[in-house]
This record gives sequence, structure tokens and C-alpha cells, in this order.
Amino acid sequence: MSAGLERTLARLGPADPDARAGAARALDAKTKPRGSLGRLEEIAQRVAGIRHDPAPGRLRAAVVVAAADHGVAREGVSAYPQEVTRQMLANFEGGGAAVCVLARVAGASLRVIDAGVGTPTGNIAEGPAMSDADALRWIEEGVAVADELATDGVGVVAIGEMGIGNTTAAAALCAALLDVNPAATCGMGTGVDDAGLAHKVEVVSRALGANELSGDPVAALAALGGFELAFLCGLVLGAAANHQVVLLDGFIATVAALVAARLAPDAADSMIAAHLSPEPGHRLALDALGLDPLLDLGLRLGEGSGAALALPLLEAALALLEEMATFEAAGVTDAGR
Amino acid sequence: MSAGLERTLARLGPADPDARAGAARALDAKTKPRGSLGRLEEIAQRVAGIRHDPAPGRLRAAVVVAAADHGVAREGVSAYPQEVTRQMLANFEGGGAAVCVLARVAGASLRVIDAGVGTPTGNIAEGPAMSDADALRWIEEGVAVADELATDGVGVVAIGEMGIGNTTAAAALCAALLDVNPAATCGMGTGVDDAGLAHKVEVVSRALGANELSGDPVAALAALGGFELAFLCGLVLGAAANHQVVLLDGFIATVAALVAARLAPDAADSMIAAHLSPEPGHRLALDALGLDPLLDLGLRLGEGSGAALALPLLEAALALLEEMATFEAAGVTDAGR
Repeated sequence: MSAGLERTLARLGPADPDARAGAARALDAKTKPRGSLGRLEEIAQRVAGIRHDPAPGRLRAAVVVAAADHGVAREGVSAYPQEVTRQMLANFEGGGAAVCVLARVAGASLRVIDAGVGTPTGNIAEGPAMSDADALRWIEEGVAVADELATDGVGVVAIGEMGIGNTTAAAALCAALLDVNPAATCGMGTGVDDAGLAHKVEVVSRALGANELSGDPVAALAALGGFELAFLCGLVLGAAANHQVVLLDGFIATVAALVAARLAPDAADSMIAAHLSPEPGHRLALDALGLDPLLDLGLRLGEGSGAALALPLLEAALALLEEMATFEAAGVTDAGR
Repeated sequence: MSAGLERTLARLGPADPDARAGAARALDAKTKPRGSLGRLEEIAQRVAGIRHDPAPGRLRAAVVVAAADHGVAREGVSAYPQEVTRQMLANFEGGGAAVCVLARVAGASLRVIDAGVGTPTGNIAEGPAMSDADALRWIEEGVAVADELATDGVGVVAIGEMGIGNTTAAAALCAALLDVNPAATCGMGTGVDDAGLAHKVEVVSRALGANELSGDPVAALAALGGFELAFLCGLVLGAAANHQVVLLDGFIATVAALVAARLAPDAADSMIAAHLSPEPGHRLALDALGLDPLLDLGLRLGEGSGAALALPLLEAALALLEEMATFEAAGVTDAGR
């Protein structure tokens, strides 16, 4: 572990139960039966805990998409050629990708991180993706971006990724972290067929055999991950240290967050799961983080698209907490339940 | 049936399959794997069919909340006293209710309809709620409001309700329309306990016995419904006739829509189900309409709150259809799947 990462971990603590309870009391005084806004009430309370503020108000949101290339792509694990990563980077910059549209609709800023696109990691089927030093460098880059966003007044960090081959890396990393079979973490990605899925399981099995895996999260990330996964791990840690809400996208983003939670269990307090991906490993990773996703709409694009789509739900929850009238102010009879 | 209602039914037709197919083709050309935006793609296509336009663009939305009082409230079926209906009407006007906040966040207008608050219907446990003529009058009021909204350029009509006792009326009407037991359609409403629920089932059973029920939807609505349910039924019919998208809220709004679909099966083509309520009858009514809800967040408030909350999902789906780049325009390699 680097001195920089140690400093970040030292800044990190749990959510504030008093702020959470304060938000819960405020919601109970609003003109609605207790708890009748369901998970919106849960979200508002959770954000209050994360922000250490019973009245967090409305929050500025940023979507951060990290892109990288993967040596394992040469195993033919994706329906798309590796060049698509760079092409999509240009599409993000041009505003034409799904996440660009969804971030605009949600009123969020979008930041795209080029985590070494065109310079793939090592092929995890043959050995480590990167050195521990490289993993730590990208983690620290992620922390630095979280800090910049905090300085800019951003309270919600929605995380996404792009990288041909990265569901395979995430499946390998997830299998290693949760000690489950590759078949339990591999899925169709953005579009392989049944034969492609069987091949992916075989590639992940080889990756788990080709790499020395201790229990160290950074070592596992370096062996099986990718530059964008390391960056997002750092982004999550930095955001948690800054009391920013971390809104997770799909399987790959969630696996990066799982590495962060292995380094600092309190980081999970800062997370909200935007949606459930059809990738089978996603539910496993969410369960390990104790998270229940808000949306289940069959999204399997990545890019942070699901996280951006869930931003209006967060905004709604916080607006209800801030703006709804109380029984007393509105002169409405409270049945007390 | 009145001449006015007959004219509305004559205006109503099915969704346009060609517009839907055009939207599907446009989505397949966008920079994402085919179908990877899941239900957002389905929504965009559905709206194209409803609007009879393969490129419907962004749509103005209105939330319409109808409020009424119910004679069955005197059976003690709600945790709240009847006066709360009028108090909440004032809270809607004052902007402090949940639906006011959610409509503001979604950028939608809010229209509140006083469907006879303070003048309860007859007690359905003893006889009909209203005459067929009253039901037809409120249906025609609903059609008229849909027409006004269409004139104002509103493309999405989100429907909600308020009325102490109206889950009981909706449960009775739903049981009659679907020919199921009251126990299958009665739930906790906004907050009764187990004993209250058993009482509610008993009241609904009495209502089904106290009223002559033929297969006529208007007669069933008059016998077991409420003024707001009749209004919303008409609003749905009018919106469908105007090619407006009808966004359903929870159980009660969906039962009103079910009456509309019994009068005009094509009306179901215009509907999108915003969310799933914990009321057990809601899934039955949605199944009867062939609808799968977008959200499942434990909302049990009514007021159109769930429909307002789902508006940003519709907006996102339409923005993706309108604004995403194509593979060709963005220079991204298309794997064709």
C-alpha cells in the first residue's frame, strides 16, 4: 500500500447515524402516511447519513466515466473489436453516447477519464494485468478526481466505465474477491452468445490459474483488473472520504466498488446501487456490499448509463425531504402512522 | 352509454405499429449494442406507437390528480378521517404535497381536480356509489380535461388520485371487473393494520353483495367506484383518443384505467405503468391490462406520486431516441448485435 492510499483510508469513516435519524424524523412529520414513500425515504435518510447532515438539500451530481483497454480482449471475449474503446471515447467527447444524453437529462456534469486507452493491460489469461505500483497510481488518480469534484461542490458521484473486454476482467476479479466459480460471475456482456459465454468462463478460469492471488485487494486488482477499475476504486475511496454519495452503475463499476470496500469497509456506507444488470455477478457483488438496486430495467450498456438514469430518483428523494409540507404547517390531520 | 362517451370511443384506435417499428430501427442504429438499453428502448418504441410518430421528440407532461370523498369511509376502512381529503386538496394547491414536489422535479405541470370533495358518494357497502348518469358525467369531465391538455400541447398525462376510503372502492371495483375474491384485491391502503384489513375485506364483500352487477363497465363504476375514479376513467379515454401517453400511478389509478380498457380495449395501448404498489390488487389489474411496471420502490401514497417519479424515465427514453449518435455518424464500429 502506498502512503497516499493510506492517507485516504485514514480520512474515511462510517455514515453518521444521527444525521440519518434526523432525516427520518423530518420525513415522519411530512404530509403522508409514515413510510409511504418507500425506498425514496430510505434514500433520503441514507444520503443524510453519508453527508453527515440531516438536511442535505439538493446536491450537484457528476457522472465520471473511466475508459481503458484490456489485454484479455485478444482472447476474443467481446462481440466488439478493441478499437471501439477509443471510438467510444470520441463519442463521449462528442456528446452522442447514451451516458452523455442521460447525464444531460439529469442535469449532471460528465467527466470522461482516459485511463490508458490504446495501451492495453497485460492479458490476465496469461499473467497480471498490471503491477501493484500501476494499480496504486490509478487508485490515487481516482482519489484526486474525487477531491477535485468535492472542491467543485459536487455531492453525488455517479461512476461508469468503458473498455472492450472489461466484463471479463470484472468477472475474474469478482470471482477472486468472492471466492466463487467463474460460471457464477460471467455473463453475456454487451452481446456474446452461448458459445462466447462458455469461452469467457474458460478464459476467466485460466486467469485465476495464471495469477498468484493472496487476499490483498490491491494485488487482486493489479492481477485481474484494469486501469479503469483501479481508477474507479480510487474514485470511490476518495468520494467516501469526502462524504460524497457514490452512485454505482452496473457490474463492472460495482466490482471496482467492491475492491474499495475491501480496502475500507466504511466505504460501502457511501454507496447507492442505481440498477441491477443482467450480468449474474452483479447481484453477488451487490449482496457482498449490502446494497439493493433501485432500478431493474434490463440495462446492459455500462458507461454509467444506469447510474445517470437513477440520478432523478436521488434528486426526487432529496427534494421530498427538503420541500414537502409538514402535517402541522399544512393543517392536515395526522393519524400517527 | 351517453352520446358524448360514444363519440370519444369512436375517436379511439390502436397504437401505430409502423411508428413503433421506425423507432426500433432508429434505436438499432445508435452507438450501443442492440437492445442494451433494455426497457428504455421498449418505452421509446411504445411512445412512438402511441404518438403515431417514429420520432416523437421530447413531450410536455402534466400530472392530473383527482380528489373525491367516499361514503364507504364511514365504515372505518381508513386510518385517516374523511376530512383529510379536503385538507390534502388545500395541500395540493399550496404545493406542499409529495406529488407537488415530484411534479416540480420532473418539470411537469400539476392539475388538481375537485371531484366533489365534501360531497361523498353513496356507501357502496349498502348500495350504489352513484347513478349511471353521474358516472357518465364525471367520465365526460375527464375526457374534456384530456382534450384541454392536448390543446395545450401536453403529450404525457400522468394520473393520480386522493380520497379517504378509495382503496376500498378500488378493491371492490377491481374484484368485480376481474371476478376475483375481495381478499385478492384488498391491501393495507395507506396504513390499516391486520384487523383493519380483515374489516376491509368484509366491507368489500358486502359491497359486492349489495350491488346488482352486470358486465357493463359504466354500471360497475357507478355501483362501486367514486367520482375521482369516473373522472380518471374519462381522462384515460380522452388521452388515448388524443394519442397522449397515459402514465398510470398505483392501484386506484390503474383500476380507473381498467374500466377505460373495458370500454375501449385499444386504450390499453396508450398506457405505461409507472410503478408497482404493494396493494395486492395492483398486479392483478396491471396483468389484466398487459402492463409491466417500471419501478418497484414500495410506494403506497397515491396522489400520482409514483407516476410523477417515473416521468424522468420517459424523458430519458425519448431523449435517447432523439439525441444519441448513430454508429455511422460517430464513426464507431458496429458489431451488428
